Amino acid sequence: MAATDPSKQRWIPWMQRALQLAGLAAGRTSPNPLVGAVVLAADGQLVGEGFHARAGEPHAEVGALAQAGDAARGGTIVVTLEPCCHHGRTPPCAEAVIAAGITRVVVALSDPDPRVAGGGLQRLRDAGLEVITGVLEEEAAHQNRAFVHRVQTGRPWGVLKWAMSLDGRTALPNGASQWISGSAARSWVHRLRAGCDAVIVGGGTLRADNPLLTSRGQRQPEPLRVVLSRSLDLPEQAQLWDQSEASTLVAHQASSDWAGRERLRAAWAQAGVAVQSFERCDPLALLPLLAARGCNRVLWECGPSLAAAALQQGCVQELAVVIAPKLMGGELARTPLGDLGLTAMDQVVPLALDSAQSLGDDLLLQARLRCDSID
Amino acid sequence: MAATDPSKQRWIPWMQRALQLAGLAAGRTSPNPLVGAVVLAADGQLVGEGFHARAGEPHAEVGALAQAGDAARGGTIVVTLEPCCHHGRTPPCAEAVIAAGITRVVVALSDPDPRVAGGGLQRLRDAGLEVITGVLEEEAAHQNRAFVHRVQTGRPWGVLKWAMSLDGRTALPNGASQWISGSAARSWVHRLRAGCDAVIVGGGTLRADNPLLTSRGQRQPEPLRVVLSRSLDLPEQAQLWDQSEASTLVAHQASSDWAGRERLRAAWAQAGVAVQSFERCDPLALLPLLAARGCNRVLWECGPSLAAAALQQGCVQELAVVIAPKLMGGELARTPLGDLGLTAMDQVVPLALDSAQSLGDDLLLQARLRCDSID
Repeated sequence: MAATDPSKQRWIPWMQRALQLAGLAAGRTSPNPLVGAVVLAADGQLVGEGFHARAGEPHAEVGALAQAGDAARGGTIVVTLEPCCHHGRTPPCAEAVIAAGITRVVVALSDPDPRVAGGGLQRLRDAGLEVITGVLEEEAAHQNRAFVHRVQTGRPWGVLKWAMSLDGRTALPNGASQWISGSAARSWVHRLRAGCDAVIVGGGTLRADNPLLTSRGQRQPEPLRVVLSRSLDLPEQAQLWDQSEASTLVAHQASSDWAGRERLRAAWAQAGVAVQSFERCDPLALLPLLAARGCNRVLWECGPSLAAAALQQGCVQELAVVIAPKLMGGELARTPLGDLGLTAMDQVVPLALDSAQSLGDDLLLQARLRCDSID
Repeated sequence: MAATDPSKQRWIPWMQRALQLAGLAAGRTSPNPLVGAVVLAADGQLVGEGFHARAGEPHAEVGALAQAGDAARGGTIVVTLEPCCHHGRTPPCAEAVIAAGITRVVVALSDPDPRVAGGGLQRLRDAGLEVITGVLEEEAAHQNRAFVHRVQTGRPWGVLKWAMSLDGRTALPNGASQWISGSAARSWVHRLRAGCDAVIVGGGTLRADNPLLTSRGQRQPEPLRVVLSRSLDLPEQAQLWDQSEASTLVAHQASSDWAGRERLRAAWAQAGVAVQSFERCDPLALLPLLAARGCNRVLWECGPSLAAAALQQGCVQELAVVIAPKLMGGELARTPLGDLGLTAMDQVVPLALDSAQSLGDDLLLQARLRCDSID
């Protein structure tokens, strides 16, 4: 969406470049946001570029200013997110911008982090710098939607993914389901996981598919693998118990019956699988824990019941649906979503379709929920 | 697909025009094929164009030759389908081509009609005309796939259509289903019907939706509306019994119990609803009757059980699926297809996805079955 204000218009190409830089670290900065910055000298020449590569490493502004050096003096910094004003693992960027002699700051999005929340911009204005905000704000908000959501709600952004046949089936009546989608779509799922901080399944998926749930090395470290199992009715042998490539967390109901599960507990203890009990082991209970562990975005790769529960509890913001050009049929065949408790067509969950693209022979549809709550 | 043979290459643009002309009558020529023709004078100038508008009206060649008049002498006719050599409702086109003094005939597709089947081309060669075949043959076969299928199998080409939510549901658990798709998609379905010779539903769809099943005037006459009902458990009042806009045929099992259905039978007799009994009232039994009534293409707008039966009996060649950006959920919610009796993933029905396009907020996917039989 082009800003119509002419004073903003001229910064759009530079902000596009800053967004592009920010995107280079997509999925790798959690719990931090994606940020990109460019520095222009007083004469308008590009003299520095930077992006935030991962938590603990320098912020985008610092990298771009370092590259610019003295050429930043009297110049402009164009940055996708409001510079921070607090001491985190690195010093506040607002101070670095001032110290570098920058005279104009162009920002896309105010930082929703309550520790910043306009304070960075105020600090810059107080120091006499010109501050222009809202340049490509919508694009920047979209790029950082997971971070913004986590900061605003205390819960990671949820992506629900499934693969189904054109007739909406995720398994045959007898449960057979491998494979519905082709190799290109399965590779895309590995890339999707690489952009997420955790991948969540239920006990049913673990028992049925014994999945690996990694990005196949496309993300280091691999996303945390989470099994949500009220009953702890889980197999003693499973790929998820092998912690050599990726970590696993088992979330269960505090009242789960451990009788007969001693060998499972011993196997987990030996392998280093984390175990966490919840009074109510449901999607909503799990998410604050994952947010506290630094997850901005989590992927729900679960069966119909857990998917329906995650949706009903507001844990899903986005959908990724792979449609395979196949017909499977079956009165009793498995479908993507369990009961949402809806009884009238005006209650159905509205989505905004973002994109449709080919993945080999399959079709990938990506959509967002139009509302926060489905009840 | 461009023909690589240089002698064919030069005719491709003219054949594209002939195919375009043929397509002007799409859905209105049954039981005849779509045919388009252009006539070029001896010096290569375009002097005539024609297409077959509907059964009983002149064939494409005749219209194009009439437009060309004497300028056809020594010229070329480019036609999408082999000129006929038999007397039907109009005289044979091969004779008309010869009589007009044409010296070269360029054809896309041989006529699969056993009354023609190469005879037209042979007649032209015997008369000393140069005959070039196979120019844009694949495109022409695709354009006339319904006609070719009907001629080769004795059964109309079947299109199975449904609208579903992104989670593959065609109704909520309580049966509510109006409306899943938006107004743009529903208008598109009216256009789809206008391209079909009959629209088929089962008794369940009639009872649940009381549909009108017309093209809303986009086709005259409207497609034949067919109700396939073994049990004759049908309502006495239904939009389909009103024959003022479109005709209706009720197909039922010969052994159906008519007791208690006297009022229904009387209503049908008074309104002029056609009734046909079959020893076995299933999709495959119905189709030869529809082919004999001149149907090249029929639309299955039925519920999951009849759709599954039609697929299993090889009555469906093409799918049109509208996906609404909504989630409906439900363990027991209705899905597009009943049981296909499949027990392994290598048995699933493979499709070729032809297109994906937006219809308002909805997405339309069109696909073809990759094989004739699904068992």
